[in-house]
Amino acid sequence: MARRSGGRQARIASRKSALAEDLKPVRAGIPGGQYRPLDEAGIAAIDTTVFKILEEVGFADATDHCIEVCTAIGAIVENGRLKFPETVIRDTLDKCCRKVIMYGQQAKHDLDLSGSRVHLSTAGAAVMIADPEHNEYRESSAQDLYDMARITDKCEHIHMFQRTCVTRDIDDPRVLDINTAYNSVMGTSKHVGTSFSDPAHVQETLRLLHIIAGGEDKWRERPFVSISCCHVVPPMKFAKETLNCIRVAVEGGMPLLLLSAGQSGATAPACLAGTVAQAWAECLGGLVYVNAIKPGAPAVLGTWPFVSDLRTGAMSGGSPEQAILSSACAQMGNFYGLPTGTACGMTDAKFPDFQAGAERAYTATSAAISGANIVYGSAGMYASLLGACPESLLLDNDILGATLRITRGIEVSEKSLSFDVLKDVCLGNKGHYLESAQTLEVMQTEYIYPEFADRSSPVEWQEQNKPVILEKAIAARKEILNNYHPMHISDEIDQQIREQFPIHLPRETFGRSKI
Amino acid sequence: MARRSGGRQARIASRKSALAEDLKPVRAGIPGGQYRPLDEAGIAAIDTTVFKILEEVGFADATDHCIEVCTAIGAIVENGRLKFPETVIRDTLDKCCRKVIMYGQQAKHDLDLSGSRVHLSTAGAAVMIADPEHNEYRESSAQDLYDMARITDKCEHIHMFQRTCVTRDIDDPRVLDINTAYNSVMGTSKHVGTSFSDPAHVQETLRLLHIIAGGEDKWRERPFVSISCCHVVPPMKFAKETLNCIRVAVEGGMPLLLLSAGQSGATAPACLAGTVAQAWAECLGGLVYVNAIKPGAPAVLGTWPFVSDLRTGAMSGGSPEQAILSSACAQMGNFYGLPTGTACGMTDAKFPDFQAGAERAYTATSAAISGANIVYGSAGMYASLLGACPESLLLDNDILGATLRITRGIEVSEKSLSFDVLKDVCLGNKGHYLESAQTLEVMQTEYIYPEFADRSSPVEWQEQNKPVILEKAIAARKEILNNYHPMHISDEIDQQIREQFPIHLPRETFGRSKI
Repeated sequence: MARRSGGRQARIASRKSALAEDLKPVRAGIPGGQYRPLDEAGIAAIDTTVFKILEEVGFADATDHCIEVCTAIGAIVENGRLKFPETVIRDTLDKCCRKVIMYGQQAKHDLDLSGSRVHLSTAGAAVMIADPEHNEYRESSAQDLYDMARITDKCEHIHMFQRTCVTRDIDDPRVLDINTAYNSVMGTSKHVGTSFSDPAHVQETLRLLHIIAGGEDKWRERPFVSISCCHVVPPMKFAKETLNCIRVAVEGGMPLLLLSAGQSGATAPACLAGTVAQAWAECLGGLVYVNAIKPGAPAVLGTWPFVSDLRTGAMSGGSPEQAILSSACAQMGNFYGLPTGTACGMTDAKFPDFQAGAERAYTATSAAISGANIVYGSAGMYASLLGACPESLLLDNDILGATLRITRGIEVSEKSLSFDVLKDVCLGNKGHYLESAQTLEVMQTEYIYPEFADRSSPVEWQEQNKPVILEKAIAARKEILNNYHPMHISDEIDQQIREQFPIHLPRETFGRSKI
Repeated sequence: MARRSGGRQARIASRKSALAEDLKPVRAGIPGGQYRPLDEAGIAAIDTTVFKILEEVGFADATDHCIEVCTAIGAIVENGRLKFPETVIRDTLDKCCRKVIMYGQQAKHDLDLSGSRVHLSTAGAAVMIADPEHNEYRESSAQDLYDMARITDKCEHIHMFQRTCVTRDIDDPRVLDINTAYNSVMGTSKHVGTSFSDPAHVQETLRLLHIIAGGEDKWRERPFVSISCCHVVPPMKFAKETLNCIRVAVEGGMPLLLLSAGQSGATAPACLAGTVAQAWAECLGGLVYVNAIKPGAPAVLGTWPFVSDLRTGAMSGGSPEQAILSSACAQMGNFYGLPTGTACGMTDAKFPDFQAGAERAYTATSAAISGANIVYGSAGMYASLLGACPESLLLDNDILGATLRITRGIEVSEKSLSFDVLKDVCLGNKGHYLESAQTLEVMQTEYIYPEFADRSSPVEWQEQNKPVILEKAIAARKEILNNYHPMHISDEIDQQIREQFPIHLPRETFGRSKI
């Protein structure tokens, strides 16, 4: 009994001390790829179709600049469509950036997108906030965006903050774009993704980011904001204004997310294989343009095909077809050896309920274990991207921790196979492993423990007055928003920004005093 | 506009007609295995360790009969432990049954466990019912078991009913075992799994099953009930009484589930690789005994390692470690080419909430795509198997449908790659695929539609008065239990059974008139 109690005390002591970073059970960038929804023949057939689409169908609506730089490297204009012969794609694949780093404002948040390394990010342009406390959907505001950035900053397993909602209280598109970037980078020091409706807004925001970075050269060394570009209106039509944004971003050293967001059965083929092929063709077309502007410019291939519920035409982000589409796209990304992001972890539910948990979990987990370099939209998104839920970020953080733990998988080594431990326990008639040194040693490195999920027994749960997980999350959201104001950007820099840009929210809102 | 409306009407007409069985997007037995948490070297190292454990450590507490028949084929007794040299295991692997069929009372429910074919089942021995309508846990009863069998009978994606809860209103262990089998087979015509505390109960229940089958020969042709045997008390100790049950079951033609349910860090090594190795060693040890009694007797390898939350020692069925343990066990099962069941889809939550959805989804999906032949415990289980929730079966059916859709994956063919459809849409300036013949053609075969999950927009959801998914499930549970009484067993047979066995529930409860 004494020994047993000793073991238990040691375990208690052990879990009270903070875990060194390299001993944590999971971290950003764990390699995926153990899940391969496509076999070799399937990959080859999709690859062939991708090249055929680019060569024989090509893109409508290229800009003059796009046509100019792409034809200069071998692209062809035919019947008003910009087509890419195989050699053009192969040349692009030879010179493009294969190791994109998504820098944080702080180096500890840098994300290396090489290989099959997996990272998890928010993303979306929700027009509403899902408010489970008041059981309602309401318009999203600039404050909401800042709040979600702050909460994300506290969530270990959400590695990047791509803007989640539209700041609907700002009418002017220029002011909206600037404030979207500003509120995001003020709310978190993790890498930020945002978007722009006009190349002039990209230009102006770059100036703002130079101030934060401490100069343009510093920004170019560690660009901590990426631009999300829907460069294509599926199927196979370029978005002219976005191509113009791409040009400014590439020249300004801003990493790009080249986004193809077709919807199967509507703007992409109803057959999933065809949707994957179209998504990859559309993203590779964007990559040709980016590299024609500047070879090696950092770009993430954003194969984000979505699913239509063909009974209604509505998008279904929580469907199992979404899980396999995104996973297959990630697998193709690993095949091409390109930094690949895909959208998974969304739900069609309105609030964090049973449906939401299930849909988020099976979609996010599938995409992660398939080796997506960034799983966008994996936290906070509801009603198929129409709603964003701040509380959910905290709950999703648990799911994403679990997702990463699954992605890490099982290490097999002589030590972990535990034969000697087993022999000792069995032949020594010890009956159990509770007192084995190994058990204490690996309890923090082999296992991850959730923050909100309830593992109590029914009796303990009753003694605790039957806690409700959503209520715990609502309380935690309030606690963070009342007390947590990241200060990675100094008052002086903030003041400089405010003197030069139309910043919407008063300093007090940001937990800072008036200057 | 007219064309578009025509397409929409055709889609509506199409979805109203019932789908032929072979056109359904998913079915029982879809092959898994696309997810491989272990690499080749990991599989080989675990395999080697499994053989070492069986040869060098062996089992304590074998029965005389087990020692007799196993030593007759080469097993060795050393220091009171029954050890299996490699040749004994290899011989067993040569002669054992690799294509187990879990028969239903109706042939449409037969489950072929060969290859990596995936099936989903309930399982558990919950002592409580999780009642979300009244926000409480209460003792489970015989009626509850019958009710859960009936609900399962209505759930397309739950392919088998292994008993979910203990009939705590029956004290006598013999009466309990008989009524557990009876209530299950009366409630569903799907394959039933049950368990027994005494070999005499197996014997007696076999007589009951002969009556239902229409004679012992008919039973032996299509045994529709399997016995769940915890033949081992981990680590590496046989359970004597269960070995005696195994003997009776094998001789009586009842398929077996050989269950190793160690708990990592407690009754199995804390390192997951070691837990997988121990689970496989324990199950293969059981398989040697079964085949020593009768070569080729149908047995499912039940590698069910569980996870301890090492902070408290409590089991955590919803943990990500559970997902990878079970998936790795399934992968080893495919490696050995043996019919393999594992436990996944459980949750630590108390009711169908966000946590429950997430934990069920990531565990069940991982196990399915890893190619587990039966994912046991994938529906209805709460509080780490302590509670069973009837309503949840209905909600879980949606998740399991999605799980199967993910398992099916993406078919890649010239047709599904849709190049000609894409070319037609893009070069014909059609702008979308909504009117493509292919879209209408595949909307039912390529996509699965959930029953309870809500895909409405926030506006529609508000117009519908903000439906709550759990309330929909509670209403559906009531509807089924009030109105659905399976009648696959005739009144005459029921009467025969009642004359010979201590049947607990009155006929009226079963929706039948008194005779």
